Parts: sequence; structure tokens; C-alpha cells
Amino acid sequence: MPRTMSKYIFLAPAPRLVSDIFSEADLLRLRAVGDVVIHEDGPVTETIFEDKAAQAEIIIGQIDLPESRLKRATSLRAVFNVEGNFIPNIDYTYCFRHSIRVLNISPVFAEPVAEAALGMAIDLARGITRSDRHFRQGTEQYGLSANTEAFSLFRQEVGFIGLGDLGRAILPLLRPFGCRIRAYDPWLPAEYIQALGCETASLDDVLQRSRLIFVVAGATSQNQGFLGAEQFSLMQQGAAVVLVSRAAVVDFEAMLDFAAKGHIRFATDVFPQEPLPGSHRARHTDNSILCAHQAGAMETAIKRIGKLVVADAELIARGLPPILCKLAQPETVALFRSKPISKT
Amino acid sequence: MPRTMSKYIFLAPAPRLVSDIFSEADLLRLRAVGDVVIHEDGPVTETIFEDKAAQAEIIIGQIDLPESRLKRATSLRAVFNVEGNFIPNIDYTYCFRHSIRVLNISPVFAEPVAEAALGMAIDLARGITRSDRHFRQGTEQYGLSANTEAFSLFRQEVGFIGLGDLGRAILPLLRPFGCRIRAYDPWLPAEYIQALGCETASLDDVLQRSRLIFVVAGATSQNQGFLGAEQFSLMQQGAAVVLVSRAAVVDFEAMLDFAAKGHIRFATDVFPQEPLPGSHRARHTDNSILCAHQAGAMETAIKRIGKLVVADAELIARGLPPILCKLAQPETVALFRSKPISKT
Amino acid sequence: MPRTMSKYIFLAPAPRLVSDIFSEADLLRLRAVGDVVIHEDGPVTETIFEDKAAQAEIIIGQIDLPESRLKRATSLRAVFNVEGNFIPNIDYTYCFRHSIRVLNISPVFAEPVAEAALGMAIDLARGITRSDRHFRQGTEQYGLSANTEAFSLFRQEVGFIGLGDLGRAILPLLRPFGCRIRAYDPWLPAEYIQALGCETASLDDVLQRSRLIFVVAGATSQNQGFLGAEQFSLMQQGAAVVLVSRAAVVDFEAMLDFAAKGHIRFATDVFPQEPLPGSHRARHTDNSILCAHQAGAMETAIKRIGKLVVADAELIARGLPPILCKLAQPETVALFRSKPISKT
Amino acid sequence: MPRTMSKYIFLAPAPRLVSDIFSEADLLRLRAVGDVVIHEDGPVTETIFEDKAAQAEIIIGQIDLPESRLKRATSLRAVFNVEGNFIPNIDYTYCFRHSIRVLNISPVFAEPVAEAALGMAIDLARGITRSDRHFRQGTEQYGLSANTEAFSLFRQEVGFIGLGDLGRAILPLLRPFGCRIRAYDPWLPAEYIQALGCETASLDDVLQRSRLIFVVAGATSQNQGFLGAEQFSLMQQGAAVVLVSRAAVVDFEAMLDFAAKGHIRFATDVFPQEPLPGSHRARHTDNSILCAHQAGAMETAIKRIGKLVVADAELIARGLPPILCKLAQPETVALFRSKPISKT
Repeated sequence: MPRTMSKYIFLAPAPRLVSDIFSEADLLRLRAVGDVVIHEDGPVTETIFEDKAAQAEIIIGQIDLPESRLKRATSLRAVFNVEGNFIPNIDYTYCFRHSIRVLNISPVFAEPVAEAALGMAIDLARGITRSDRHFRQGTEQYGLSANTEAFSLFRQEVGFIGLGDLGRAILPLLRPFGCRIRAYDPWLPAEYIQALGCETASLDDVLQRSRLIFVVAGATSQNQGFLGAEQFSLMQQGAAVVLVSRAAVVDFEAMLDFAAKGHIRFATDVFPQEPLPGSHRARHTDNSILCAHQAGAMETAIKRIGKLVVADAELIARGLPPILCKLAQPETVALFRSKPISKT
Repeated sequence: MPRTMSKYIFLAPAPRLVSDIFSEADLLRLRAVGDVVIHEDGPVTETIFEDKAAQAEIIIGQIDLPESRLKRATSLRAVFNVEGNFIPNIDYTYCFRHSIRVLNISPVFAEPVAEAALGMAIDLARGITRSDRHFRQGTEQYGLSANTEAFSLFRQEVGFIGLGDLGRAILPLLRPFGCRIRAYDPWLPAEYIQALGCETASLDDVLQRSRLIFVVAGATSQNQGFLGAEQFSLMQQGAAVVLVSRAAVVDFEAMLDFAAKGHIRFATDVFPQEPLPGSHRARHTDNSILCAHQAGAMETAIKRIGKLVVADAELIARGLPPILCKLAQPETVALFRSKPISKT
Repeated sequence: MPRTMSKYIFLAPAPRLVSDIFSEADLLRLRAVGDVVIHEDGPVTETIFEDKAAQAEIIIGQIDLPESRLKRATSLRAVFNVEGNFIPNIDYTYCFRHSIRVLNISPVFAEPVAEAALGMAIDLARGITRSDRHFRQGTEQYGLSANTEAFSLFRQEVGFIGLGDLGRAILPLLRPFGCRIRAYDPWLPAEYIQALGCETASLDDVLQRSRLIFVVAGATSQNQGFLGAEQFSLMQQGAAVVLVSRAAVVDFEAMLDFAAKGHIRFATDVFPQEPLPGSHRARHTDNSILCAHQAGAMETAIKRIGKLVVADAELIARGLPPILCKLAQPETVALFRSKPISKT
Repeated sequence: MPRTMSKYIFLAPAPRLVSDIFSEADLLRLRAVGDVVIHEDGPVTETIFEDKAAQAEIIIGQIDLPESRLKRATSLRAVFNVEGNFIPNIDYTYCFRHSIRVLNISPVFAEPVAEAALGMAIDLARGITRSDRHFRQGTEQYGLSANTEAFSLFRQEVGFIGLGDLGRAILPLLRPFGCRIRAYDPWLPAEYIQALGCETASLDDVLQRSRLIFVVAGATSQNQGFLGAEQFSLMQQGAAVVLVSRAAVVDFEAMLDFAAKGHIRFATDVFPQEPLPGSHRARHTDNSILCAHQAGAMETAIKRIGKLVVADAELIARGLPPILCKLAQPETVALFRSKPISKT
């Protein structure tokens, strides 16, 4: 029996379905890696864990894996969260000590979110959504008169707050515009930021010197609401903010205040509460573009989840390091504070 | 007296003002090329022409230059239209025979229009303006539900109708998306289109095989309304059309029909009539984004006009070929049919 | 009779043969443009001109076209030099006044020459040819010891002397190296040079501040030997010079002197005299790489000549401007001083 | 006492000196991370280890770290090999189980090796070194005659054997040439290779279909001499091979045989034995370019070692994951078989 066929894989992708994330072809590829045991109905109880998961070499899904379960999972070599986050229902320390790889599939979202972020940025800068709204209200101005507050991204001063996977996915899309890009990311050394063609900057520098700011910092236990009234007040009059990571990193009310009074304009894909209450003032605030957590949630992205998982599972089965999914790092995994989401 | 100081320049930029298009510094540079005679008030009558323009080596502005005037302009070496078009108020044949360069400053608009076109394309593909409208109406859907009709530009099938200066300015912005690009441009050889990284295609091919179509063909005497009902019906269900050149190349009513019934979606920066009548149905048609001839009319672009003109005037004064402005070509100049615009 | 079939084309490509520059397919395309009259044997005498060329609409080849011939060529619309230069055997003024396009096919050489120039530059910087020579002499040094005079192109200070078609073809190849590029080209405005991602600089600045200098200026009546001892002495100790345009622009003996004493190193593809005399000291001078006018003369480039010519001939036959070949400009054509070459 | 000052760092970079790899500024930065204990004279004996290294949080240098030492190193969090390899004198398993990061600085060599590889490739393709040799022998041919065996990289069929860090550093340098690139790398999934703009291919496919082949596979216990006579015979007549990783992956004698008979041409930076014996036939074999292990060993690269180490040490000291150096992976570290090198 060939070595790669001996792997046994537990696949419990709730809240997604197997067919959401695996094409027929990808599922076939996965079955070539090992026997696939699927659990789609209801939570993974102790009984189900014991029966179906305990001896797996690979677990796909964000099931609870406390030490008590991990101790029994003596064949386990890798856990794939297929939601896009690292959530605190796994004993990561145990995994690191026992060379169990924990991965998530967040890379599938980088491209669609970066694309949406660029679209939101151009829209804010050039007034596309606003112009369309004026047309529908019969109040449009033409030509230069439409552009009194417009600016161009070409050769613009641009700031990044955070330069993780998502920020780095935006960079190539900006490159043709020849922007000067300042980046603030306390997790990254200057050498790394510069190698990406950006300048390192303090948070205040980014805030004060950028006409356009991408907020792409992930939410951690350390940065809740760190962009508040003080930070918005440092921004230039007319600065544009694109928020596509997590609402938790900004003081949303402060952002609305500064947009309402015309100090900034913003576009956001995320909200402190989703769905946004029907009466929320964000719905009537000027100088803003509201998107409904739609930047990453493309069907094509969801379908790529299976592709990434199966390719890395194949590597793991061959004794090679996984390379496509995002690997949990001992230093940082405990810091992430994304809420598990119902189904994005 | 140094040769470059002997040039005498007639500057009559109506409908723009000198200060719209020349910075102080650029005007100083122009004065270093030759004596600058400015005419900003009213039309250039025969008397004014005779007094101020007839002996100029360089004329800047879109004044009438029939043979009768050109015959008297025996020192004339170049005419700069500062509006962005070649208009039929010049005897081009006379100019070509007498080595008088006729130029326009359309290159200043390529970057801002390309940027707006990309923004409109991403917006159509990803539903940004639509989502914002839904938020303001309280009808937004989240995540995957917001994206049932969304598509991504990454690796998308994209078509260009026309691949002139404007189309070519869009190409570098699309490059990071890895699109497959088909282009139809009857004025360009296959070798040229391929060297730009595109595939040559028939018009029907572009229409049928593209998910996203940029209409960037200039209006000529030969292509009025060449995109009509028949062409829209060839497009894929859900195809997106971005129109940023001239409204005259499409049958606007047909485009509205196909958007209204959901066969296509479109974004346009131009309209058959501007301002658009208040009651025009375009204001209420779904699947469309309306921009108010604002793609090119950026103050920064207008200010670049002077820079291009003075740089090329310097070259001409030194006996060198101009290189920044757009040069009228004997073969094509008679074909252009852009309306002179009041002030864009 | 369809309009495009009425064109009659005289094809006399000496010193090349038709089959050197036209593939079968390209010749077929040309025959679809018009009747092709080929003359391959011997010079185009008056008799031959009268019989075969006088009524042509398109002449392909570098035959003499003084006013006396042009006056008889009343159908003539375009002349294609298939050698790569504009040579002074044509009455260009007559052509410009009569809207006869004169073109050459120099663009086919831009890519191969740019590639060779980059190879020569890396070779000079990194000591490839020198290392290989040492190996064959048994005197090689390893590792760091091999690299005491090496430098890298990455983020290097690079200078361009001339930024015409050839220089511009090198730029994209250098882009991944992130060089700071200063360019000196008196024919080009600062705005143009900057739009190419370079800085404008004086000649002295380029000489003094560059570690690597590309000499890509064409030879004109104004710049013979303008890079002489004074200019080489301004270069940095250890500067590298890549010469791929024309030997006439440098004082070759001075360049050899400065290489011999180790002040500079150079790579050249061109020589004041070709073949280089057997006893020429260049053959024994250190700090140099010698290439035998081979940068452009690739068979694939020669075969592209026909492709460019036929594509532009098709445009001209359709009343459109040619776009692939290089167009003679009234301002500059008289300045070029390339020697007609036997067969490159 | 601030947390970051409590780190104690053992720095024993033999065979290099501290001043080879750390600039003054970088050493100052390192001292800001923690107390730096330097050992430059002689091996790290048990006594020295016990006295100076055992309690370090960070060890910089490739000292022996068997389990017996690691057990005593209870504060140890990271080990930086400053030579560029992972060598088998560390108990990696122990390190992985105890979250001790083991890193090397191979990324500093990626850029200079990639640059040299491109230079060697263009040189092989265009005959630069060969032409220079002919000039010095008085046997050069000019123009087309010099190029009978030349080919261009533009739009060429290119193969990669291995697509690790080094191969990936070559890719951006090749991008402007528009090559079709096939890559064979059994450690990488197709999705990853395709995302880099390459096609996945079998080894035979790469060998048979490429005109130019980059051999950039690292030497492992599994691939010694895997490119032998059989593989060279599969290559196209006139194919060019660039070898810049490790000589051990090819059968060097077979490569010489195939070059000697003109089936292939090759450029190599590495040899089975260095220095190459004076009488080795490689010194007289045609169709080859020999470089003396000089592709990576640039002084600027060596000086970057300190920059990478200190930047990652700063991150580690702050409890963040290192990001610039190469991290040892449990799955692969045991496979590498690079010989420790005296001093490259």
C-alpha cells in the first residue's frame, strides 16, 4: 500500500459545506491523499471526534481541539481552518511542541479584497459613487465642477496601516500609479518594508502625510480601536480612508464624525455590527462608501479554499512543508482576535 | 540676439484662461522661448489675427486657421490646440505641405481617464456603488449574498474596443490582474497589438468573449453609433461595459435597454447630451453607473497642458521634433469628429 | 478592382535579399497589398527606376531618390529603408512637402541590442568574461577574491547617454534591478525623461555620478567623438561603459587608454573600423569586452523587418498612418550620420 | 530594566569575522537588543560554550548544537547560521520541539546570484564571452556571421529545475523578456508555480522543451547527480544550461561531454572540486563559461547578513516571528546536503 494512501483525513468544514469549498476535482485529489471522512451535520461531539477524527493525520475544519483531544490525536500532523482565521479553540502550544501544523486559508481572500480596496480607493478619490448618486438625484455637476474635491492616485502620497498579507496584495495593484507609499506595521522590520518598495513610517507620519490611507491591520488583542478621534484629526483635510480588514481596529463612531464634518472621506467593507442596524447613522453620512462585507466573499475565492487545502495536504502527505495556506506562528497566533464568522 | 529668443508666440487659449493651463513657472519657461502675445478676451478677429498672430512662429489655442490666414502666417511652425482634439477649423493639408506641426494636448487626459476607467470597471464588477446605494436604502445583503452577480478582474476575459492612447493608458493598470485581453482596433496592425500584450480580435469576438469591455474608441466620421442593439445582444449575460471615450460611438438608448433588462451593466462618463436632461430615463436605469464627464477633467490634468506645450515649444524652437503633445497625422486628422467642448 | 489591390510596390532590398527579410507568409501579405515588383540584381539604374519603380505607390529598399526621381514618382506614398538608418540619398524635403512617408525598420533591432547591452553590463559588473578567461589561463580566484572589483546592478547608479528608441528598450530590462537612472539626451524634454522613470541630468552629471553608463546616442553630424579623454576622466574609478550605438560618438583611443590604466572598464559592440585590424591594441587591452557588431544582427530580427514593413504597408494602403516602422522627422533626418553598412 | 535589554546574544560567526557581516551601525542595533558576547578566536569549546553561550537567548553562528548543549541552553530562542546553509551539526528536532527558531541568511545571496545567472544566460545565448575570446585570438566574425548560433531570451522557451528562493529571484529579472517558463520542482504544488507565472512541467518536459535551462535546485540527500548523460541527451541541440546552485546536482563530466561535442552549451558558477584542478579539462572545453563561485559572494551581500540577523533578532526579542532570514522547516531541514564552505 503506497505511503500516500495511508493518510486518513477528517473533513468537517462547518459552517461551510464540502461542496462550497471543494470542486469535484479537488475532492478527488484529496481522496488520493487519503481516506476522507466527512462530517457535515451538526457539531463535532466527543463521540464523533472519537469515532471519526481521533486517528486522522489531517483535520480540515475549525473544530475544537483542546489538549484533551489533541492528546488522543496521535497521528495528527496538520489542521486546516477553512474559515480564514486562527481562532482560540485550539491548543496551539501543544501543536507547536508536537510538530502539528495549523493552517488557515486566508490567502484566498487576499486578491479579491485587494481588488475591492483599489476600487474603493479610486471611487473615493474620483467620486464615482457620489457622482452616480447625484445623477439619480438630478444634482450632478459636470467636468471640472464634478472634480473640485477629486484627486488622482497617480504619484499620490499613500499610507498603509498594516502591511500583512492583505496589504501586500494591494501593493502590486498600486504599482502602476507610481505612488509614494509609507507603511506602518510594528510587526515588520524596516528592511522588509523597504524591499516591498515602501517607506517605513510611524503611525502619526502615515496619518499626517497620506492623502489616501489603507487600513489593512488585522484585529489583535493589542490594537482594538487604535484609530480614534485623535488619529482621524491628524489626517489631512480631504484624506481618504479605505477600511477592509476588521472594524474593530477603528473607533467607528469617530470615523463617522470626521466624515460627517467633511474632514475625511472613507470607504468601509466592515462594520462593528453586521448587519448594520437599519437606523444606523452610517446610512446617511456623507463622504462615505459602504460595502457589505463583500470584499473577500467571492464564490471563486471560496472555491479556491479546497485547492489550497488539497495542495498543502499533498505536500504534508509527502513529508514536505505546506506552502499555500497561512501557517500559525507560535509568536503571534495568540494575538489574533477575529470573531468567528457565521459564513463569509 | 540668440536664436531661441527670436520666436514669437501667440497664445489665445479660449475657452480656457492662460492661468488655467500655465503655472507661473511654465509661463516663464514659455517666455524664454520667445515673446508671448496673449489674447484672452473674445474671439480672434481678422484684425487681431493680423496684428498679433500673423507673424507668430507658434500659435497656442484653437483659433480658426483657414488657408487664407495660413498663407499670411509665413513664420508659422507649430499650432497647439489646448483643448484635446483636432477640430476642423484648420486647413491641415496646407499645414502638412508647409511643415507646420499641428498638435493637441490630449495626452494629459490619458492618465486620469484610465484611472477612472479602472475604478468604474472594478465598481461594476464588484458592485461598490450598488452596495452603497442599497445601504442608503436599507436593502443591503452581506457577504456571498452581496456578490451573487459580482466578478473579479483577476485573470478575467477583457475586451478593448479601440486601443489608442487612452486604451494604452489603461493597459498598465490592468497588468497586475493578469487578464486575457482581446483588442479590436481597425487602425492598428496585429503586431502592434500583440506587442502590447493583447490579442487581436474581431469586434464580434471582443463582444462575445469578454466579461468586461472598455469602449475607448474615439469618435470618427466612420464609427458613429457602431455599438448598437445588435452589438449589445452579442455580449455575454452580465457583461460589463465601461464607456469613457465619446458617447457618439454607442447607441445610447440601446445600451440603456440592455442594462434595464439586465443583459449587461455599464458605466459611462459621457452622454449624448450634456447636461443630461433631468427627466432622462438613464437616471433611473439599473445596472449602470453614471459619471459626469469627470474622468479627464482634473485640475491637475489641465495644469499639465502648459507643461506639455512649453516643453514641445522648446524643442520646436531648437529645431527638434515635438514629442509630448499629440501630432496631427495627414491620414487621420480629417476623420476625427469630436465636438469642440465648452470647457472640459 | 478593390482599392487595396491597386497599389503597386517596388521591392529592391539590396544589400539584403527578399528572402532575408520576408518570410513566405509576409511576402504573401505584401502581395495582397499590391502588385510587387522585385529587383534583386544589381543597382537600380535610371532605366530600371523608370521601368519598374517610377509609378510605385510604395518603394521598399534604400535606393537613391533625388528630386529628379521623386518628381516622376507621382504615385509614391511611402519609402521603406530596410537597413535601419536614414541615409542622405533621399530628398527628404521633397518627401515631406508631398506627404511621402519615409520610414526605416530600426525598431527590429531595439530588443536584441537592449538584451545584449544588459548582458554586457552584467558581464562588466560581475566579471563573467574575465573569470572565464582566468579559468582558461589557470589564474582564477574564487568567491570574494573573484569579486574585489565586482559590483551589482541592483539599486545601482546608472547613466544613459542618449535615450532614444534603443535606450528606451533597455529601460524595462533594468527595471527589476531598481536602479537610479540619470539620463542625458538633449533632444528630449525633462517631462518625457521623467515619465520614463529616469532623472534628467547634464552630461557631466551622468559621467560623474554613474557606476554604469550606457552609451546609446546615435551618431549625428553634431556629436562625433563627443565622449573623449575629458569625459572619461570625469567618470568614477571603476565605472563601466557599455557602447552599443555607434563607435563615432566616442574617441575610441581615449576609451582604450582609460581602460588600459584601469580607470574604467568598457564593453563595446562597435568599432571605428570593422573588421578591426588584426594588430589593433584593443585586442589586448584589459578591462574590456569586445563584441563584433552582433548586438542587433540576429536572424530573427532581420526576419522581423518584413513583418514591420508589410504591416505598415497595409496601413498606408488603407489610408492610415504607419505605426511600426520609424518615421523620418523633418527636424532631425538631416542630422543622422550613420554610415550605410554593407549588411548587418 | 526593559524587556528587550535582558536578551543576551552569543555571536561566534567563524569562519567569518564580526566585521565582515556587521556594519558598525548594525552591531549597535544588535547591542540594543541585548548584551552581545563575541567569540571570534578558534572553535567554541565546551568551556567556551558553558561560559559564554549556554544562557544566551540568541546564538549567531554555526556552532555545534547537539542535544547535550541544547539541553543546557534553557533560554535559547533562536539560532542564526550566518553562512547560508542548514548544516547537520544542530539537533533540529530538539529545536522544533522547544520552539527554538533556527535560521540562515541565504536570502542575502538570492539577488546577486540571480543577477549573475541572468548575465550568464544572456552571455550563453548571445555569445559575449565567446566573441571576446575570438577578438583576443583574432578570429572574430561580424554581424550575422557572429550570430549563427545565437538566440535571444525574448519570448524564449525557458526551463527551471528547482524554483526555490533562488529560482524565484531570477523570475522578475526574466519577466521583461516575456519568456514561456516551465518549472520542475517536486517540492512545490502546481498552484504555487502557476501563481509565479510559470507552467508546471515534468523534468523531461523541461529538458526537452527549453532552449535555456536554469539549474537552481539545492543539493539534497535525494538529488545527487540527478542531471546526467541521460538528461543532457534529452536537451535540444544548442540548449543552454546555467548552473548556479550546487555542482552536486549534476554529473559534471557528462555536462562537459555534451558541451564538448556541441550538443549543449553551459555556464557554471560551481564545480565538484574548488579550486578546480589546474589540469581539469573543463578549462579547455568549448561551449562553456566558467565562473569561480562568485555569483553570491559579493561584499555587499556579506554585509547584508548582519542587517537581516539584527532585524530578525529585534523581532524575536519583541516576541514576534522573524521574517527576513530563512527558517528551518521540520520537514526539509534534514534533507539539505550542502557542504559547509570555508568562506564564501
